[in-house]
Amino acid sequence: MDFRIEKDTMGEVKVPANAYYGAQTQRSVENFKIAQDINRMPKEIVKAFAYLKKAAALTNQDAGILPAEKAALIGKVCDEILEGKLDDQFPLVVWQTGSGTQSNMNVNEVIAYRGHVLNGGSLTDKEKFLAPNDDVNKSQSSNDTFPTAMHIAAYKMLLETTIPGIKKLRDTLDAKAKAYMHVVKIGRTHFMDATPLTLGQEISGYVSQLDHGLRAINNTLAHLSELALGGTAVGTGINTPKGYAVNVAKHIATLTGLPFVTAENKFESLAAHDAIVEAHGALKTVAVSLMKIANDIRMLSSGPRAGIGEIHIPDNEPGSSIMPGKVNPTQCEALTMIAAQVLGNDVAINIGGATGHFELNVFKPMMIYNFLHSARLIGEGCVSFNDKCAEGIEPIEANIKKHVENSLMLVTALNPYIGYYKAAEIAQKAHKEGTTLKEMALKLGYVTSEDFDKWIDPLSMVGEL
Amino acid sequence: MDFRIEKDTMGEVKVPANAYYGAQTQRSVENFKIAQDINRMPKEIVKAFAYLKKAAALTNQDAGILPAEKAALIGKVCDEILEGKLDDQFPLVVWQTGSGTQSNMNVNEVIAYRGHVLNGGSLTDKEKFLAPNDDVNKSQSSNDTFPTAMHIAAYKMLLETTIPGIKKLRDTLDAKAKAYMHVVKIGRTHFMDATPLTLGQEISGYVSQLDHGLRAINNTLAHLSELALGGTAVGTGINTPKGYAVNVAKHIATLTGLPFVTAENKFESLAAHDAIVEAHGALKTVAVSLMKIANDIRMLSSGPRAGIGEIHIPDNEPGSSIMPGKVNPTQCEALTMIAAQVLGNDVAINIGGATGHFELNVFKPMMIYNFLHSARLIGEGCVSFNDKCAEGIEPIEANIKKHVENSLMLVTALNPYIGYYKAAEIAQKAHKEGTTLKEMALKLGYVTSEDFDKWIDPLSMVGEL
Amino acid sequence: MDFRIEKDTMGEVKVPANAYYGAQTQRSVENFKIAQDINRMPKEIVKAFAYLKKAAALTNQDAGILPAEKAALIGKVCDEILEGKLDDQFPLVVWQTGSGTQSNMNVNEVIAYRGHVLNGGSLTDKEKFLAPNDDVNKSQSSNDTFPTAMHIAAYKMLLETTIPGIKKLRDTLDAKAKAYMHVVKIGRTHFMDATPLTLGQEISGYVSQLDHGLRAINNTLAHLSELALGGTAVGTGINTPKGYAVNVAKHIATLTGLPFVTAENKFESLAAHDAIVEAHGALKTVAVSLMKIANDIRMLSSGPRAGIGEIHIPDNEPGSSIMPGKVNPTQCEALTMIAAQVLGNDVAINIGGATGHFELNVFKPMMIYNFLHSARLIGEGCVSFNDKCAEGIEPIEANIKKHVENSLMLVTALNPYIGYYKAAEIAQKAHKEGTTLKEMALKLGYVTSEDFDKWIDPLSMVGEL
Amino acid sequence: MDFRIEKDTMGEVKVPANAYYGAQTQRSVENFKIAQDINRMPKEIVKAFAYLKKAAALTNQDAGILPAEKAALIGKVCDEILEGKLDDQFPLVVWQTGSGTQSNMNVNEVIAYRGHVLNGGSLTDKEKFLAPNDDVNKSQSSNDTFPTAMHIAAYKMLLETTIPGIKKLRDTLDAKAKAYMHVVKIGRTHFMDATPLTLGQEISGYVSQLDHGLRAINNTLAHLSELALGGTAVGTGINTPKGYAVNVAKHIATLTGLPFVTAENKFESLAAHDAIVEAHGALKTVAVSLMKIANDIRMLSSGPRAGIGEIHIPDNEPGSSIMPGKVNPTQCEALTMIAAQVLGNDVAINIGGATGHFELNVFKPMMIYNFLHSARLIGEGCVSFNDKCAEGIEPIEANIKKHVENSLMLVTALNPYIGYYKAAEIAQKAHKEGTTLKEMALKLGYVTSEDFDKWIDPLSMVGEL
Repeated sequence: MDFRIEKDTMGEVKVPANAYYGAQTQRSVENFKIAQDINRMPKEIVKAFAYLKKAAALTNQDAGILPAEKAALIGKVCDEILEGKLDDQFPLVVWQTGSGTQSNMNVNEVIAYRGHVLNGGSLTDKEKFLAPNDDVNKSQSSNDTFPTAMHIAAYKMLLETTIPGIKKLRDTLDAKAKAYMHVVKIGRTHFMDATPLTLGQEISGYVSQLDHGLRAINNTLAHLSELALGGTAVGTGINTPKGYAVNVAKHIATLTGLPFVTAENKFESLAAHDAIVEAHGALKTVAVSLMKIANDIRMLSSGPRAGIGEIHIPDNEPGSSIMPGKVNPTQCEALTMIAAQVLGNDVAINIGGATGHFELNVFKPMMIYNFLHSARLIGEGCVSFNDKCAEGIEPIEANIKKHVENSLMLVTALNPYIGYYKAAEIAQKAHKEGTTLKEMALKLGYVTSEDFDKWIDPLSMVGEL
Repeated sequence: MDFRIEKDTMGEVKVPANAYYGAQTQRSVENFKIAQDINRMPKEIVKAFAYLKKAAALTNQDAGILPAEKAALIGKVCDEILEGKLDDQFPLVVWQTGSGTQSNMNVNEVIAYRGHVLNGGSLTDKEKFLAPNDDVNKSQSSNDTFPTAMHIAAYKMLLETTIPGIKKLRDTLDAKAKAYMHVVKIGRTHFMDATPLTLGQEISGYVSQLDHGLRAINNTLAHLSELALGGTAVGTGINTPKGYAVNVAKHIATLTGLPFVTAENKFESLAAHDAIVEAHGALKTVAVSLMKIANDIRMLSSGPRAGIGEIHIPDNEPGSSIMPGKVNPTQCEALTMIAAQVLGNDVAINIGGATGHFELNVFKPMMIYNFLHSARLIGEGCVSFNDKCAEGIEPIEANIKKHVENSLMLVTALNPYIGYYKAAEIAQKAHKEGTTLKEMALKLGYVTSEDFDKWIDPLSMVGEL
Repeated sequence: MDFRIEKDTMGEVKVPANAYYGAQTQRSVENFKIAQDINRMPKEIVKAFAYLKKAAALTNQDAGILPAEKAALIGKVCDEILEGKLDDQFPLVVWQTGSGTQSNMNVNEVIAYRGHVLNGGSLTDKEKFLAPNDDVNKSQSSNDTFPTAMHIAAYKMLLETTIPGIKKLRDTLDAKAKAYMHVVKIGRTHFMDATPLTLGQEISGYVSQLDHGLRAINNTLAHLSELALGGTAVGTGINTPKGYAVNVAKHIATLTGLPFVTAENKFESLAAHDAIVEAHGALKTVAVSLMKIANDIRMLSSGPRAGIGEIHIPDNEPGSSIMPGKVNPTQCEALTMIAAQVLGNDVAINIGGATGHFELNVFKPMMIYNFLHSARLIGEGCVSFNDKCAEGIEPIEANIKKHVENSLMLVTALNPYIGYYKAAEIAQKAHKEGTTLKEMALKLGYVTSEDFDKWIDPLSMVGEL
Repeated sequence: MDFRIEKDTMGEVKVPANAYYGAQTQRSVENFKIAQDINRMPKEIVKAFAYLKKAAALTNQDAGILPAEKAALIGKVCDEILEGKLDDQFPLVVWQTGSGTQSNMNVNEVIAYRGHVLNGGSLTDKEKFLAPNDDVNKSQSSNDTFPTAMHIAAYKMLLETTIPGIKKLRDTLDAKAKAYMHVVKIGRTHFMDATPLTLGQEISGYVSQLDHGLRAINNTLAHLSELALGGTAVGTGINTPKGYAVNVAKHIATLTGLPFVTAENKFESLAAHDAIVEAHGALKTVAVSLMKIANDIRMLSSGPRAGIGEIHIPDNEPGSSIMPGKVNPTQCEALTMIAAQVLGNDVAINIGGATGHFELNVFKPMMIYNFLHSARLIGEGCVSFNDKCAEGIEPIEANIKKHVENSLMLVTALNPYIGYYKAAEIAQKAHKEGTTLKEMALKLGYVTSEDFDKWIDPLSMVGEL
């Protein structure tokens, strides 16, 4: 490979000749040879940096401390980053300095050097039109830019992927709940036969879970909307012009179209990431809901002969080459694996969040890596589950009917007419002798066939629909 | 011990002669010999049951299905339970049936039998004035009473213990932040010397964390305010009179003085406990904050000679018999242990919440046990930390001053006057030769002593106060 | 309440008149008002202290630095503690100093003062025969006694409760596996019908899990057998006589009958509790196994009419007053709640273990509290599950047979005779038309009734038994 | 893109024209659009499949059920996979079916079609020389191949990356412990000044932690060495030739050079992954150790002026552009982030391990993804930390000396000469007046300057070295 020589305050470094990045990025590549092929800094963080670097340039220009020409050039490269044109210029991994300094410098270097090239210069020019620190990083520190990028990336992921994915699944389940609101089926408590409800009622519980989950996520957005930018090194805002924090947040809000504001307290914003911990607390709640829902659907569709078999879900892949009719609930499996992953990610985030010291939490890259992972898995997992499974849920009426009819719990409805003890006797003997309730009721002579059919009406046991 | 014989549908059981509980409670005692001396069902759950049983009796009376005399008697025993007079009548443990049925029956039995005694009867009477199932449990099921008790107990604990505890600590820290807002000290990022801030600013970050944590808890109260009662066996409300769910929630709200409402979807309320998962997500966020705060205070007070030593905290216990002046930060230690416990409890709750099946989640007792544990530990832990530690925080001015004066980072302030490179040269040489910045600045001849003192002003580096 | 005055280096403290403990214990009671009624220091730790204090006294006597009379008296009180006679003298909670110093002092005080009384003295005597620090704590520090007590208590709990409990369940399941080794039943993969196996084979998988779990626990005993005692304040053994560490471990081994040895590296023993973390890693593995086993049994016994219903488990409590025959799998529920608790405790332990600083980990009480909780829950939970559930497992042959006969996967056995495609055609059409394989095979004319019965033999599909 | 048409039992699928994989792989690509750019099935799993597919072919050949020519061709493609030549042929993600069936089929298809091409055929040939199911997957099922691949990949990663990485760090720390065994420094307990120890002793504690961690990992290898292969669909070994399970394990052992054996109980091997749970329990123990070690080193190197500053670690990257001499402990930060990640991964693995049902655990891909992630992070993280940090650890003698000399705890050594009370008085007054012990001792007239220097000898307080 061809190299060029770049310098920083520690000396010379060989950098790939065509790389837009410089010495500090290269040092990080060499110093952190950890999972480099699988744990790159999430691309959403790089893009969030593009928003904030552009916003900072505009704010610095407004404040009269950055020439319009430089600000425009910075903005131009940021746009290229947002368009994905420079994706290969960000080789750093999550396992670097805990402040994300090296990723901040990676972005600073790429913007400066790519800007210089856009401006007609060459990567090998000694003097460049834009300086990574003095121009691109002006009025900033890694300590406030990285947490700002965390909040931008997290907020965007929640709004663009997580929430729409959950909503899509919620809406499908809601439609199913309504469609099957009158399909009376057996209830199960303790995994044991219980009094009946309708399939629509059962599914409505899932909808309610997701509705509450969406509310839980929404409740955490306010904290995530607070940006650290303007706090610089330790939260005091050293080296920023007057009004900078408020103004740069406005620019970010405009550029992203999202309601970002400057954090009221920058000391918290650098030293702690409770907003990430809190918002992931909502994500883990949704993961818990999804585990429940996917497990239920997995079990309700089990069979085809020796399971519960009350619903049919789509057959997406050939089952075993031996066994036709074997629909494996693969989307349930993917979704429950995702739920387990999110619950694990939650613990990593908690530990990171709890272990900051003094003015800076240095678990930033790990925290946002896990957050974005969870937020994306939930969003994309819900869409996959929705499109390939939930939309195709259909009741298997024959099995549903058989289970309700066989049920011994319908006897409950006889209590008002023949009293609890006789009703119990019917049920107990039916259980022991393996007959239906009706057979036993008639055999014992406690009810007539007509009365039985009139009194035992599962639909009347499910409440108002 | 003396016994009497009690019966249930499975036959006779020997019960301690004076116990107000009956056969089903006794069976549970014998069937679940697991940690019986340390893991009793939390007393808060028993009291929550007292509220809901009284409310149910009143609602049943309103609906004309329970005589006023019986309702009054039920209410009387509930009041005794709330006063703590019957604490020894609830021997069951957390590790029982996952629906909490046995604790529901324990309460039903105690209310019925104690009520019978209050009514002039005897425990050995065959016929009793109140029946555990038919009267006390009327219009109810374990499946809706236990989750109702969970929400009542959780909500009350948050309002009465957790939130006031956090607020107390928050207010003390806020007062400290204001008191020390002008005490300039060195900042630390990456646990390394950084630019200065004030002690008040540093503490204000903790206040901001707790403010956000309080908001996070408050955001979860709405879901917790939803009560399952009225759902009975599977959420359909079988065997409840018209309007029961709404009315019983109103009675509970009145009795507790808390804004409880009936849950919109009872199927969720029985089958999932996302409200507990979500609310504990807020508690774990606070635990993360407390770990950070207590760690910082532990470290800032470290020493007395070979640590950081910038604050003094109260000396609550004799240190080692050998070593005078050794104040161990024991309150920090208790609080960080609590934080670790809460983070562990969170995982147990998540797993329980995720593992419900069909119409009933059967991890109820375990979930609420962990929730109440966390909520109480945070509340009481904050009060203890506040009273015995935070209130006594005082700056150790001599050390604070020494650290700021020795700092090499103040050189930053020279940039505008002598330029970055000369400033850097001063700092680097001062570091290498172990001198102060001023000594080196003068030695190199870049500034005069007067200018140095004028330009290097830590207070001007901390922003607006 | 009556009080007497006790003193320590910080001054006077009012102590309950009859309490054997003194000033330092009382201070802790007052300084840590956190969950005092539910989170006492585990009694196993107090007893472990009794072993080690007696061993230390003997070792000090051997070394000639403690008079035989004092050593004997110390030993006498330790014996009383081991007999449970002084249980009410240890009021401290888990949430105290992270070194457990206060519990060490509690033990020192009780031994000294109770010893003084045994020796004919009075609690109000100014001079006492035994001094808490100088005699009882001689050659010791909280920093090495508490981790020693942790290892003694953990090791004993594992050997006396956890391992026997798991073994009991393992042996029962092994007997069931053998008893039902020829009961052919349908297999289920992805919760879907699959090729057959026997009930005994299925249960043998659980036995294998528990066998591996027992091995996993055993593998961690070596690390737990290492004792910190002799490290004193920071691991250097300051203030101990020559040979003390080795000798005191020998005394503890003799007193407990367990193979304790002195830790090779005392710096680790005080500063880290990886042995606890590692051993709990084995416990969480067993918890994972138990969750799987109990879930399977819960589901296999589900029904009675609309579930899987292949095994019967004991009916321990009356089911619902409405629904006869409703056996709730309550022991499965208790055991799975325990598994969830252990998985949560694991995280608390990990965080505590990871957060030690320099020469001392100060999450000791929290770590051992969780460890003992898990170890006991698993042990007692397995016994309860064994006695009240596993021992009563019986196959429900009718359902098992029906499921196997209905299964479409038996078609696999026709492949060698009629080829894969014809076999597949039979299965697919049988599935679509809801017939049995045999009906469809005959209808399609691919096999005769005799051949079908000869070739389709589920027993031949389960391998060697 | 160009496509060709592939078929499976569900119909036609468009596959990229040059892809070696077929219909089933393509269906998975389309059905699981979840994190496709970041969560590919780990390449270690693909390689493990190559070992086992080759071994299965050889075993089938030995058993006379696969022609030598086909076995050789299968082996040839497996070799290509192991050489990394076909890396782009495995596009599937972790979030697929929980049995990993689709990845098994991906491998089957690539081996069959690439083999066909190597044999002179074309991808568009209707008939191919090798069939994915009948030849490549012969005597196998996804249900036994995927867990076999899990164990091969896990075992290899532990042996090739994790253990060597930990050992490298352990050896460096051991060398440092020996090199600095006589550098007396202050001890710190409760983060407070305590009696002295040497830097070598302190580091020896870390070595002991890692030694125990390595033993813990080694203890888990036996369970991991057990292979599921031969269990096929449900553990019974249906469709395998006699002796297959034992023989295929031998072939795998030969091919990998690792001591793999066939699992004694295949029902466990398919239905549970306790071996993964257990082994990751050892990894989380090491993570806990690394968190402690890296935190200590981070804090010991803190400063340079206002921290603890007792050791120097390498300066790997330019610190802030403002602040020369600012060495950020970036390797400590990466390693502690890794530790947090591993502790999170542990929870995901636990949940996956606990949630299997009946004959198959369907959290396989998620479990092995997290396992390999942790094992690699620890291994590569230790190497990075070793090479860029631990090897460069050097004591900062001036600070170490200053801290020891200032320490008030050295007073302990005066006890034998002047008694505890006078010693305490010296220390207390020195603390209050901010003097050294010696100054105060002389001022109080309790010792002479000569005696003080003779008696107060920190080196004598650290025990035998």
